Amino acid sequence: MKLQTRITEQCGIKYPIIQAGMAGSTTPELVATVSNSGGLGMIGAGYMTPEQLNQEIIEIQELTDLPFAVNLFVPSDAIYDPDEVEEMQEHLAPLRERYQVSEPEVDMVAEERNFNGAIELMIEKQVPVVAFTFGIPSQSTIQRLKESGATLVGTATTVEEAEALESAGMDAIVAQGSEAGGHRGSFTVDEADQPPLIGTMSLVPQVVDAVNVPVIAAGGMMDGRGLVASLALGAEATQFGTAFLTTEESGASTLKKQAILDSDETQPTITNVYSGKFARGIRNRFISHFADYQGEIPEYPIQNQLTTAIRKSAAREGDAEYTHLWSGQSPRLARTISAAELIRQIVQEAETILQS
Amino acid sequence: MKLQTRITEQCGIKYPIIQAGMAGSTTPELVATVSNSGGLGMIGAGYMTPEQLNQEIIEIQELTDLPFAVNLFVPSDAIYDPDEVEEMQEHLAPLRERYQVSEPEVDMVAEERNFNGAIELMIEKQVPVVAFTFGIPSQSTIQRLKESGATLVGTATTVEEAEALESAGMDAIVAQGSEAGGHRGSFTVDEADQPPLIGTMSLVPQVVDAVNVPVIAAGGMMDGRGLVASLALGAEATQFGTAFLTTEESGASTLKKQAILDSDETQPTITNVYSGKFARGIRNRFISHFADYQGEIPEYPIQNQLTTAIRKSAAREGDAEYTHLWSGQSPRLARTISAAELIRQIVQEAETILQS
Repeated sequence: MKLQTRITEQCGIKYPIIQAGMAGSTTPELVATVSNSGGLGMIGAGYMTPEQLNQEIIEIQELTDLPFAVNLFVPSDAIYDPDEVEEMQEHLAPLRERYQVSEPEVDMVAEERNFNGAIELMIEKQVPVVAFTFGIPSQSTIQRLKESGATLVGTATTVEEAEALESAGMDAIVAQGSEAGGHRGSFTVDEADQPPLIGTMSLVPQVVDAVNVPVIAAGGMMDGRGLVASLALGAEATQFGTAFLTTEESGASTLKKQAILDSDETQPTITNVYSGKFARGIRNRFISHFADYQGEIPEYPIQNQLTTAIRKSAAREGDAEYTHLWSGQSPRLARTISAAELIRQIVQEAETILQS
Repeated sequence: MKLQTRITEQCGIKYPIIQAGMAGSTTPELVATVSNSGGLGMIGAGYMTPEQLNQEIIEIQELTDLPFAVNLFVPSDAIYDPDEVEEMQEHLAPLRERYQVSEPEVDMVAEERNFNGAIELMIEKQVPVVAFTFGIPSQSTIQRLKESGATLVGTATTVEEAEALESAGMDAIVAQGSEAGGHRGSFTVDEADQPPLIGTMSLVPQVVDAVNVPVIAAGGMMDGRGLVASLALGAEATQFGTAFLTTEESGASTLKKQAILDSDETQPTITNVYSGKFARGIRNRFISHFADYQGEIPEYPIQNQLTTAIRKSAAREGDAEYTHLWSGQSPRLARTISAAELIRQIVQEAETILQS
């Protein structure tokens, strides 16, 4: 097994190590440090306006000349159900009171506006790698990005999703196993309206067999062992999320980093109560506040907008119980070092395994 | 990475390949073929009487002189709730009618009697490797088996379970990831009374870090890629279940083998409706028959006894919709070859990866 793959060539990086585009938790320092250390740093731009994203790119380009990536959320057609939203507002009222935050206005167009603005920015700035979560962008968007020279990466949680992404023209596919922290990239649901939760060990080789483009393994990997295991399964790079979330350069607050460090493998659970899309986060009182909720959870981005202020206020007040605490299933393997040192250690561990 | 590990030494086998003890689906031919091919064959004795198990051992010993293993279900203290059972009997009545099977008498002592008889047999026959699912046997049982020279293997689905098994004296621990087919070996539940579902990629390295005894990876592995990935994660052998279930020597019926071959990674789901314990099987009408069931599912082995005749009759009549169809999350990787050829291919694939 070699650490040089089609992915390292496509992305112009030294090691097959990709920092996941964790919306809300990446910083220009993190992205630039990862790229400067031989990996691929990625801006988690899912919640950014084009103006914010532009500023991030400027800051990163001051810190590195090397390739980096931007991760975007593909907008979906959410349906606004007034009764559903009202019921949710009532359910959230005690939490709003607790943190003294007011009811937000739901903005049903912001997501698409931000996405379209981000695409223009990707083309204008000639961002080297553009990654997508939550679906497949339109063919015209894909074509325009390709003409700008971007390498396009899609996110799949099933073989079917991977095949659809390849057909649409993606240059590489992230196979996101059920271990992964944060949002599931799924854009299909199963027969019971649940997100597919295929373990990384199962998902990666089945996706590798189904597509011709290179596959990036995601979900559960935290160290050199995970990197080599991914490569053995046929992946050509490993995407690390939680592993970078606790590094010094991460944008996650001390509160959120500490929650990961204090967690074990059984604590991160799958829930849609934060944003309306399924995601893996550490169990807390915000999640259990919905244990007996009888209504429907409004779709993303509605629920996300309804809960954001509560979560931000809780985090600001140092209360881990009412904010989201994204983590994959390997929190015991988290390290509190710089992103540069993390990459150095992962590569060294991988080389030691490969030579053993 | 080497294919020789502490497990191959402990178990006296050539390759770090262990055939999972799939209760109801192993045959003497399968077990002996696996052992004769350099792996460790295992009798899935969970549902056998001591007399049946004795007969299996005799047949295997006629086919091989090499080590093999026996997998036993550790009895748990199930509570018989007459109302719960009656409600379930009513819910199962249309299925009993469909297959013309009568209501069974629940036998609350058979499990423990069979287990105790099996332990005596293990000692009498000096079975080389004894593996346990669903918990930790008593200290006196562990001591007596150890004195007989047996290598003892426990099954863990969390780090906590692995640590408990090591403390109890197990010589090796199977880390069973969420991808695995058939019964979850869990003997703890999470805060929401759900079985822990930690992906193999996350579970294995966290268990390896927590215990000193060697770890056997289980869940999702089907080929040489999975074998090498397991070893990279620090496991010292790989347990293959579904991969052996579709082999020629497997005891699974053509119906059940075909269901795996026709399945994809999204179809095997976690359910407790077959036996009262959580297990991964392919979605069918038996499972959806319980989609809106409001009552409690009786505990194992009660529910298992209540549903066995229905499932057996359905299978006999070629009806895959009302029998259990155990499968892990990698059915796309299943092969219909002999177990000997499967092991030969896995080893060859692994060696190719290790040399690449």
